[in-house]
Amino acid sequence: MLIQLNPTGVLDLLSQLEVDLLEQSSTSERYKLFRNCALAVLNVGSHTDSSLEIYNKYKDFDIRLVSRERGIKIELINPPTTAFVDGEIITGIHEHIFSVIRDILFICQKYEKDLTDQKSITHMVFDMLRNAAALRVNSDPSMIVCWGGHSINEVEYKYTKQVGYELGLRGLNICTGCGPGAMKGPMKGATIGHAKQRNPNNRYLGLTEPSIIAAEPPNPIVNELVILPDIEKRLEAFIRTAHGIIIFPGGAGTAEELLYLLGILLHPENQKQSLPVILTGPKESENYFIELCKFVEMTLGTEALDKFEVIIDNPELVGIKLKSAMANVRDYRKSQGDAYYFNWTLKIENDFQQPFSPTHKNMAGLDLHLDQPKQQLAANLRRAFSGIVAGNVKDEGIQAIKQDGRFILSGEPELMNAMDKLLRAFVEQGRMKLPGSKYTPCYEIKA
Amino acid sequence: MLIQLNPTGVLDLLSQLEVDLLEQSSTSERYKLFRNCALAVLNVGSHTDSSLEIYNKYKDFDIRLVSRERGIKIELINPPTTAFVDGEIITGIHEHIFSVIRDILFICQKYEKDLTDQKSITHMVFDMLRNAAALRVNSDPSMIVCWGGHSINEVEYKYTKQVGYELGLRGLNICTGCGPGAMKGPMKGATIGHAKQRNPNNRYLGLTEPSIIAAEPPNPIVNELVILPDIEKRLEAFIRTAHGIIIFPGGAGTAEELLYLLGILLHPENQKQSLPVILTGPKESENYFIELCKFVEMTLGTEALDKFEVIIDNPELVGIKLKSAMANVRDYRKSQGDAYYFNWTLKIENDFQQPFSPTHKNMAGLDLHLDQPKQQLAANLRRAFSGIVAGNVKDEGIQAIKQDGRFILSGEPELMNAMDKLLRAFVEQGRMKLPGSKYTPCYEIKA
Amino acid sequence: MLIQLNPTGVLDLLSQLEVDLLEQSSTSERYKLFRNCALAVLNVGSHTDSSLEIYNKYKDFDIRLVSRERGIKIELINPPTTAFVDGEIITGIHEHIFSVIRDILFICQKYEKDLTDQKSITHMVFDMLRNAAALRVNSDPSMIVCWGGHSINEVEYKYTKQVGYELGLRGLNICTGCGPGAMKGPMKGATIGHAKQRNPNNRYLGLTEPSIIAAEPPNPIVNELVILPDIEKRLEAFIRTAHGIIIFPGGAGTAEELLYLLGILLHPENQKQSLPVILTGPKESENYFIELCKFVEMTLGTEALDKFEVIIDNPELVGIKLKSAMANVRDYRKSQGDAYYFNWTLKIENDFQQPFSPTHKNMAGLDLHLDQPKQQLAANLRRAFSGIVAGNVKDEGIQAIKQDGRFILSGEPELMNAMDKLLRAFVEQGRMKLPGSKYTPCYEIKA
Amino acid sequence: MLIQLNPTGVLDLLSQLEVDLLEQSSTSERYKLFRNCALAVLNVGSHTDSSLEIYNKYKDFDIRLVSRERGIKIELINPPTTAFVDGEIITGIHEHIFSVIRDILFICQKYEKDLTDQKSITHMVFDMLRNAAALRVNSDPSMIVCWGGHSINEVEYKYTKQVGYELGLRGLNICTGCGPGAMKGPMKGATIGHAKQRNPNNRYLGLTEPSIIAAEPPNPIVNELVILPDIEKRLEAFIRTAHGIIIFPGGAGTAEELLYLLGILLHPENQKQSLPVILTGPKESENYFIELCKFVEMTLGTEALDKFEVIIDNPELVGIKLKSAMANVRDYRKSQGDAYYFNWTLKIENDFQQPFSPTHKNMAGLDLHLDQPKQQLAANLRRAFSGIVAGNVKDEGIQAIKQDGRFILSGEPELMNAMDKLLRAFVEQGRMKLPGSKYTPCYEIKA
Repeated sequence: MLIQLNPTGVLDLLSQLEVDLLEQSSTSERYKLFRNCALAVLNVGSHTDSSLEIYNKYKDFDIRLVSRERGIKIELINPPTTAFVDGEIITGIHEHIFSVIRDILFICQKYEKDLTDQKSITHMVFDMLRNAAALRVNSDPSMIVCWGGHSINEVEYKYTKQVGYELGLRGLNICTGCGPGAMKGPMKGATIGHAKQRNPNNRYLGLTEPSIIAAEPPNPIVNELVILPDIEKRLEAFIRTAHGIIIFPGGAGTAEELLYLLGILLHPENQKQSLPVILTGPKESENYFIELCKFVEMTLGTEALDKFEVIIDNPELVGIKLKSAMANVRDYRKSQGDAYYFNWTLKIENDFQQPFSPTHKNMAGLDLHLDQPKQQLAANLRRAFSGIVAGNVKDEGIQAIKQDGRFILSGEPELMNAMDKLLRAFVEQGRMKLPGSKYTPCYEIKA
Repeated sequence: MLIQLNPTGVLDLLSQLEVDLLEQSSTSERYKLFRNCALAVLNVGSHTDSSLEIYNKYKDFDIRLVSRERGIKIELINPPTTAFVDGEIITGIHEHIFSVIRDILFICQKYEKDLTDQKSITHMVFDMLRNAAALRVNSDPSMIVCWGGHSINEVEYKYTKQVGYELGLRGLNICTGCGPGAMKGPMKGATIGHAKQRNPNNRYLGLTEPSIIAAEPPNPIVNELVILPDIEKRLEAFIRTAHGIIIFPGGAGTAEELLYLLGILLHPENQKQSLPVILTGPKESENYFIELCKFVEMTLGTEALDKFEVIIDNPELVGIKLKSAMANVRDYRKSQGDAYYFNWTLKIENDFQQPFSPTHKNMAGLDLHLDQPKQQLAANLRRAFSGIVAGNVKDEGIQAIKQDGRFILSGEPELMNAMDKLLRAFVEQGRMKLPGSKYTPCYEIKA
Repeated sequence: MLIQLNPTGVLDLLSQLEVDLLEQSSTSERYKLFRNCALAVLNVGSHTDSSLEIYNKYKDFDIRLVSRERGIKIELINPPTTAFVDGEIITGIHEHIFSVIRDILFICQKYEKDLTDQKSITHMVFDMLRNAAALRVNSDPSMIVCWGGHSINEVEYKYTKQVGYELGLRGLNICTGCGPGAMKGPMKGATIGHAKQRNPNNRYLGLTEPSIIAAEPPNPIVNELVILPDIEKRLEAFIRTAHGIIIFPGGAGTAEELLYLLGILLHPENQKQSLPVILTGPKESENYFIELCKFVEMTLGTEALDKFEVIIDNPELVGIKLKSAMANVRDYRKSQGDAYYFNWTLKIENDFQQPFSPTHKNMAGLDLHLDQPKQQLAANLRRAFSGIVAGNVKDEGIQAIKQDGRFILSGEPELMNAMDKLLRAFVEQGRMKLPGSKYTPCYEIKA
Repeated sequence: MLIQLNPTGVLDLLSQLEVDLLEQSSTSERYKLFRNCALAVLNVGSHTDSSLEIYNKYKDFDIRLVSRERGIKIELINPPTTAFVDGEIITGIHEHIFSVIRDILFICQKYEKDLTDQKSITHMVFDMLRNAAALRVNSDPSMIVCWGGHSINEVEYKYTKQVGYELGLRGLNICTGCGPGAMKGPMKGATIGHAKQRNPNNRYLGLTEPSIIAAEPPNPIVNELVILPDIEKRLEAFIRTAHGIIIFPGGAGTAEELLYLLGILLHPENQKQSLPVILTGPKESENYFIELCKFVEMTLGTEALDKFEVIIDNPELVGIKLKSAMANVRDYRKSQGDAYYFNWTLKIENDFQQPFSPTHKNMAGLDLHLDQPKQQLAANLRRAFSGIVAGNVKDEGIQAIKQDGRFILSGEPELMNAMDKLLRAFVEQGRMKLPGSKYTPCYEIKA
């Protein structure tokens, strides 16, 4: 089976020089990354979060760039059939394929060297979003980032749909990390809400990264997909794009996101920022949030608790609060001369921007003691959870665990006990991996 | 609570003469009808199909036309709060309110006398659809009429969503009789399918009538709502607009629709018509279709069975078949010089156009014998089921039953037994009324 | 040569009943009118204002309605070739043809009886404009009606283009009576002004009538063409649509328009109306306006002079004044709850609405004395000039003159002298007929 | 007088890094260039082609970039008032100002080093056009490049408008070098033609360069303005964008364009190219074309004459020929897999791409002998005329002449005589400079 596709978006219009460079990119080491991401995108709807499983299943899949005078097209060889309807690729997936090419092969030509300074990293995040047409100049604040687990139970999933519906009814848009569970529910709900309100400019922004895209492939509802190179740039894209943030129940990744966010909001220069944050879930998940709040309070202090609000079992209230907060966000941005489409004034320390490589050495070396500045502690805790996510669902992490055993996390006993308790709860509640597989922890806590 | 709304659609631009006439309409006997329909539209989402219950609950609701130099606006007094989000009416419902004014108060000025000849009735149906902007000149065939019960079980409801999703993925549009159950599911599913295909011109056409709108209020997803004056014009609107028809499990109303459709398709002049009809449902509903087919075969003969196809438990196949049939529909219309947006060449006998008033006398007088021409039998059976629907959920019917007891249906024993069996099955399967109320039959079968 | 055209606008979507009625219309006495108007529209660009000449030249031209299941199309037999580019009809002319069908054959079905009461006549004017999509609900005031001669000299023509350019630069739209000269210049100028301002919604509204369309055919730039049945309804359409009015030099028709306008603005109920009126022309035309003002002062008094402003040789100032007046127009309409797109609150007495038939008897019977109420005098003077226009360029008028000789106008000597002087000036300045033909007056003034 | 303007086009959405770089650009040596180009754009409509005169008149004009969190805006100090309507800048000029910033300050950041290889230069031309949104992916061939003098007589000017009108009637778009005369006329004519055809996507593409923009400022009708860095890249942009080319009467610049074009079309690899070229003008200009053809025949041979067609006094025929040639252009591009929006397959030798600096030394050193390959001769003749244009209207050229006297052109006597004769004719016909100034030749021919 061989399918040819014409380019979409910026790849529609390439010079021959750019086509040459693209061809070179796709034959270099980047090719494997590109192929795997493309496969992930095509394989949406499969019921596994094991990228290995997917790669094995589609060994004979291939993707080729074909250059022409007037640009490129691509050929898919033996793609998963689920991406097609009566032999035609689903438009949303078609677009995603070219988002992969754009972000993995094309834009990287501009960013070959590792960026280190704050301004350059932020510029790259901005540039990738702009290049994906994900920055809208003349729109009022409306983008709600929804975080939460890819593996959540049916009650929680339904709840995320209801929240999305309430957001959609209020003309708010949705940004998630793509993937199933809490990342898909709000988009489905909002789609119905938008339809009832005749909202013609619905936005469903998906921000992902190469190492997680296979485990959490973007739902075709996502109509703006950006694949940032690593979790740190992805997190920066999330919070500079957000006009409001919702955190649903989730596992280690959700914890990482919350700690990253709090670490930044606690920065003195961000005291006046207007960025509403709501943790929410159904009645049945109340304990989850109680535990999470306890952990936050113990590690980052009561001050951190002031940065968000917890709303249990009330999707409508979540919608009302976020909608009414949009006026404040606008006023704040206006008062600062800042853009609505990108939060330039938010201070993000270099500490939060530098990629953290979750090797056994780096994980073991994390400084996990309560007696350090809150922001620094937040940064370190964020890294710890980031490593666990890698060990759970990212290819490189899984390989590392397979080879060298569990990550060892150690530090101050009080802190380690709290972490252990939290993680155990995630495991028990099935938040680490999709159901169907027994979860074997990739970490070991040592006090 | 008093809410003011500006007009939408054709009511946006009225002359003072028209405003005067509208005001006159709304103070005459039509006013009650208008108020009740408006209430029904506002009350969407309530969980009852008893219009009486609704009217009682909102006794203090009122709606007023306010005339201005530049046209009209309306005032709602004490409307159901569920129609509002943070004090703003949901756009879809806003549009529906003005569809009610347009079809109940405005267009009726043109059609005060009862129409009798075939051409005039068809013209009126056309005119009402055109006036509602529900006829699209430059579109390929894509409108799938979905019939089925308002009261169906969870498995069936999910199935209608899946079918709708498969239709949406194929760029097909949905037309239903509004209301919950099989009339809402396909629209919700199609909304998600359309979103994945980036379909910008989604159509969700709702065709209803004043006497049923309260029991089966239009879902706000409906983005073209037309309120035809009676069931006969509504049925004509359905089949002249349809490019394909799906029949899901349902009760007496669904049986009425099927018999009407078969009666017309069996007309010799309609032999060559290209109009795909599919009966479909989940595995669990297979028996339902077996019974229905038996009844059709017994009454209208095997020839009638050739007019449709039954597909069990295969939403994708339903989508594939209908999508591929669209080319035939187009070819047929083209070969006849007929429009795509309205099936002018379909022959509908006056017998099927004349309103049937379900009084005790008319019901008792129905000629229910097998030994009559098939079309005529179809017309009579259609009337019998139509009366039962009225007795179940239409205000006038319910009143009539309350006053004079059950409708008596009598005729040839073999036929009456078959009807009795079918209706019993509907009752047992809970298809007559929404769950929560015990169903008391409004009819009595006498052989 | 036979050309087939598909319908545009409202004729796109007709029922079979309407098609039947259209066919009946086109075979009745209306057919000749329809054919001649269609020919006039196709013959734009010819250099004569003699309809007879045109009709003679294209004796073998014919136009036929062809009915189909899905509506109508038309066939043109031997149309003037100037309407075509490489065998394709110019889109603007294509639209005009269907405006003719719409206004001559289609809408007349609704208005067969002669309307007499004020409200019904105004409704008809509104209905015809609405039916032509010439009423825009959500637009700010911007429509400038430009009146002036169809036969003006090169300096004056260039001046009308410059004024149009200044209007276009300010986002103002143009409405004229169609035809060449002062009716075409402002549209051409505005087209360039709009292009420089990237104005995407340019409106060039043409209001004409069957009896003048051949002499003054609509320029294809006109993108909204309405053919009102008589001059009285056309004048009403002009002033209810106008947000501002410019009067360029012209002949009897322009005088008619000015007198009509002043007669209405002098009505006590119109005292507070906000409707800027500017008389303007190049330096060379200054005397023209001096004479005109003298005539107005003598007949309608100094009060009438306050209703307009004269600006000589300053297109930019005309633009500035009208643009800045738009805010007042908007405020006034808002304060009255009136529409922007149609001036409902303007009082037009029945006297100005009733058609005046320019027979010899009616012309001779006009009451032309200074000693009568100003409005009544204005109405009578308007009729006198209207008759002269008919005698000059309208078919029926020309025939009447040919048969029975000149119209006799008589009345108070002082007034008759003034009229004589004004008309003589029009003749000398070549404003009565297009150059190339010697002008023979169609009237005789008797004191 | 201080005016602030918000950015348009790509400058709407800048990162802070880019804003920093812009600010650095505008304070460097590029600033003067930028200021002068901005002034030129604002000063459109002035009646001089002497940039010095303009610069002197507006000594107190200044333009400043103002950086904000959300990007830039600019401030104009004492701009020419003709760019404003009632205090508001004309939208077309507003866009042109930001085209200047984009092409002079912004895009240059990417191209700091001088490009030398063929592919890189072509890429830059493509990139600048793309960045200006001047490449349309899904359009059929329709772009007609019109070349001709900025100083032409009234008859010729009117003729260019008529040709533009015929092109516009046929849905063709216009590309010129901006400026008055033959560069403005076709756009004005096409605007009217497009209006009559209701063409919504009119394109008026202007390609200019910094050193000529003041002498030939872009008309605000131009709705896509690109300022290429030098004449060579500008010429490449012209012919890779063109689907057809018209050459009106003109002076040295027009001769340069024709020689460049013929030099390229004579390349063996371009034999099969489909690119219609028409030389056209009114009856009165016939001799001009006879002389030009003689010169071409003498220098480049009869083969060169086959590359174009001469049409005298027939605007409609020009329109018909070009319209019908579009199908060939499309077929050719399709057969080559080439884009419609950019002619990649056209071979342009490096010889034609390398910038030629018109110094006295370079001019004197030109190899002007008939006995050399035709393409090489074309390239050298092109340079000779290019130098004369510089000496006539480009700032650097004028300065050079002022300082060191006339350019000396020498070579084979026969060729020099022919050149002398052609140039004399240009002078006599007033084609070298706008009327009002006496023309003093900037060159001297030595055999």
